[in-house]
Amino acid sequence: MKINYPTPKNNTNNQSLKTISRGMLFENELNKSNEYYINNNKALIYKKPTPIRIVKVEYPNRSHAKIVEGYYQTPSTTDYNGIYRGKYIDYEAKETQNLSFSFNHIFPHQLEHLKKVDEHGGIAFVIIFFKKVDKVFIIDIKPFYEAYKKGQNGERHSIKYTDIESIGGLEVSRGYAPLIDYLKQVDQLYFENEK
Amino acid sequence: MKINYPTPKNNTNNQSLKTISRGMLFENELNKSNEYYINNNKALIYKKPTPIRIVKVEYPNRSHAKIVEGYYQTPSTTDYNGIYRGKYIDYEAKETQNLSFSFNHIFPHQLEHLKKVDEHGGIAFVIIFFKKVDKVFIIDIKPFYEAYKKGQNGERHSIKYTDIESIGGLEVSRGYAPLIDYLKQVDQLYFENEK
Repeated sequence: MKINYPTPKNNTNNQSLKTISRGMLFENELNKSNEYYINNNKALIYKKPTPIRIVKVEYPNRSHAKIVEGYYQTPSTTDYNGIYRGKYIDYEAKETQNLSFSFNHIFPHQLEHLKKVDEHGGIAFVIIFFKKVDKVFIIDIKPFYEAYKKGQNGERHSIKYTDIESIGGLEVSRGYAPLIDYLKQVDQLYFENEK
Repeated sequence: MKINYPTPKNNTNNQSLKTISRGMLFENELNKSNEYYINNNKALIYKKPTPIRIVKVEYPNRSHAKIVEGYYQTPSTTDYNGIYRGKYIDYEAKETQNLSFSFNHIFPHQLEHLKKVDEHGGIAFVIIFFKKVDKVFIIDIKPFYEAYKKGQNGERHSIKYTDIESIGGLEVSRGYAPLIDYLKQVDQLYFENEK
């Protein structure tokens, strides 16, 4: 998801809760969906911890290290990975306030990573939440990467949510258990032949 | 690997470098081996970042968040995962100063996680470095878990390095590129039938 957002627990100031929570909501919904999948033995998919560069550690007592200076780092890969139906699965989760997703909001090295995963025979995609219209889509890395490359060559640097299905993306339906049942769309995209 | 070890960069005191570096050495050697595999397009295996519970963040300047209070957390899964020969691969790396590996040095939930990976059709093992004899072994989660369960039932709570091969573990040879070429043993353990 977004990097560099801290989770300021002590910070209950006058900032609109909605503004903060919407971002968290999607991540939380995804995490809860993955928990549901784990508990139901359907898949093992976890969010990777955000990497932190630790500069200074203190020992207020001998047994416990306290980090007193650290900085958020750019993740070397993606947010989520794991195993589903015996296959390696790897994806990056993104959200946008706009009706188009701008390719600037994803790191080139993350796209290269997903492309490699695909080449190694894994399941690799991007999952995007368009807040304004409350819609979630998954797009396989191959068409996504192609669209991204076209953007680099001077064509559109973003993709409209209404165009995602035309490049093979699928809308993910929302539910209760799990909240974001994206493995249905993963089945459609990656296991169609096995039906 | 070990949790709760900080990397005190400012801390070049009189502690023997050897004592510090040996622990780091194994982790570094593994990381470098995985880099080698990635660069040679053999596998995509990464170490997960250590999870940090962030309590307090400051903003010395608007664009940069500085963590001023944080604590190391217990990882929910294992150290390393990724994809190899189209399969999901997941392992925990451990080291010991002793000639036996004590099961206390691995979290039960990590063993349960590895067992689930195996049940989902992934490759799951423990890789152990015995410093004293400078030997590295990999052991598939099934026999490892069995030995661990026996330990819980009152039998040995540890496994001697000399007994690892008798439960199906394999010694990993050390080399130059990569330093720890453990995928050779992974081939032997998990892809024998495909030869």
